[in-house]
Amino acid sequence: MSKPLKRVKPIYVEAQDYILDLIGGPDYGPGDRIPSERTLADTLGINRMTVRKAIDRLVERNVLERNGTSGTRIPLVQVSRPIDAPASLGITRIIRNAGGEPGSKLLHFGEEGASESVARRLEVPPGSELIMARRLRSVNDEAFCIETSYLPAQRVPGLSAEDLLGGQSLYELLRQRYDIEISIRDREISVGTATEREAQLLALAPGSPTLVLRIVARDGDGRPIEYMRSINHPHHVVFRSAALPAQT
Amino acid sequence: MSKPLKRVKPIYVEAQDYILDLIGGPDYGPGDRIPSERTLADTLGINRMTVRKAIDRLVERNVLERNGTSGTRIPLVQVSRPIDAPASLGITRIIRNAGGEPGSKLLHFGEEGASESVARRLEVPPGSELIMARRLRSVNDEAFCIETSYLPAQRVPGLSAEDLLGGQSLYELLRQRYDIEISIRDREISVGTATEREAQLLALAPGSPTLVLRIVARDGDGRPIEYMRSINHPHHVVFRSAALPAQT
Repeated sequence: MSKPLKRVKPIYVEAQDYILDLIGGPDYGPGDRIPSERTLADTLGINRMTVRKAIDRLVERNVLERNGTSGTRIPLVQVSRPIDAPASLGITRIIRNAGGEPGSKLLHFGEEGASESVARRLEVPPGSELIMARRLRSVNDEAFCIETSYLPAQRVPGLSAEDLLGGQSLYELLRQRYDIEISIRDREISVGTATEREAQLLALAPGSPTLVLRIVARDGDGRPIEYMRSINHPHHVVFRSAALPAQT
Repeated sequence: MSKPLKRVKPIYVEAQDYILDLIGGPDYGPGDRIPSERTLADTLGINRMTVRKAIDRLVERNVLERNGTSGTRIPLVQVSRPIDAPASLGITRIIRNAGGEPGSKLLHFGEEGASESVARRLEVPPGSELIMARRLRSVNDEAFCIETSYLPAQRVPGLSAEDLLGGQSLYELLRQRYDIEISIRDREISVGTATEREAQLLALAPGSPTLVLRIVARDGDGRPIEYMRSINHPHHVVFRSAALPAQT
């Protein structure tokens, strides 16, 4: 007598995959509503509670968001960060240009010795004194990134926490007070995993993916002046290069 | 009589957070080994099996990888994709320049009607005939991205699957056969969630985060000729802009 075959995959996981395929496809974009639970249940020929379970999991992972009575949608991108923006264009101005209200909160400011890896990026001996500043950036009161900057302390004598309150631009400060002009920025974008603290600050589930931007900024002589690590919200931020002419 | 307080968070989750903090910090980078299970267990004052459980979860999520006897490490980045590369620089050449062996497999080739969203990006009426080509790209036999291109069919008469076998460059083809020179590419980088099929192709757990690159490429007259969506492995790929001069 043959036993019935065991289902390899729970039905809600199949529903979840169906939704991921749907919203990952070309027809859906940020801000779009997905079909209703009823429609999805009918389409897939499954129980509505199973569809809800699938959606719940996706909401937990920030892939979808519920909007009260207006259904479930793909979260809107709130910040579109230009990849190829000039160094002088701060995030404050980028947000304001897009019609948003920028916010900044200084989470941490202090001196510390350079770790091996930060020292290598800043081309200073390990253990050198660094200024470390960590800021939480927000748009319309929603946090979208945590930015941590390291600068060689001897290059910025007298820099204090007060200088960076209220969203003051670091590059503006470097230029006006220290006569340091940023000339080159090496950028790297990758996927990270939110630590508990990062998740809390960005209102994410711990372990959520994040968009990580690392920058080494150099002065006019090519000497590194800042190493910056920015942990971005995975669904509210995209990086964009607009109309970049191709060399041939 | 007071009952003992219930632990809010399982110990292995705390261990997991500790490891995420460690490798998310400035001291660790791709390819680095994390401390041994024994060391972590001693540091945290917990059972070694609990540490193993935490590491297992992180390995499942591709945050760490086990290398037989040589311990557990942060996966190496295998492909560093220049954000600001000229359009003419294909992925094949990028990989070869970095000393890797590029591979390409045509997964799908065919005609289809333009969906609303693809039509908008390509500036053609919805339902227009498009050529769709999907390729799996690999380096040293490891898949690192799935690229799907859409082109208006009337712009590329006679284009066939054979043309794209063996890693043939699409842009090279456009130039040589159709006299179309790509002049501008709009790029957008975001975080995606792997569908089951994508996860399978990239050897990821379903639901893993992915790095998504979307490009709209335009010809010399500014008309869109290709919309491309590329789903990249979250740990083997980074996007990088090297030594980008800042305008002031």
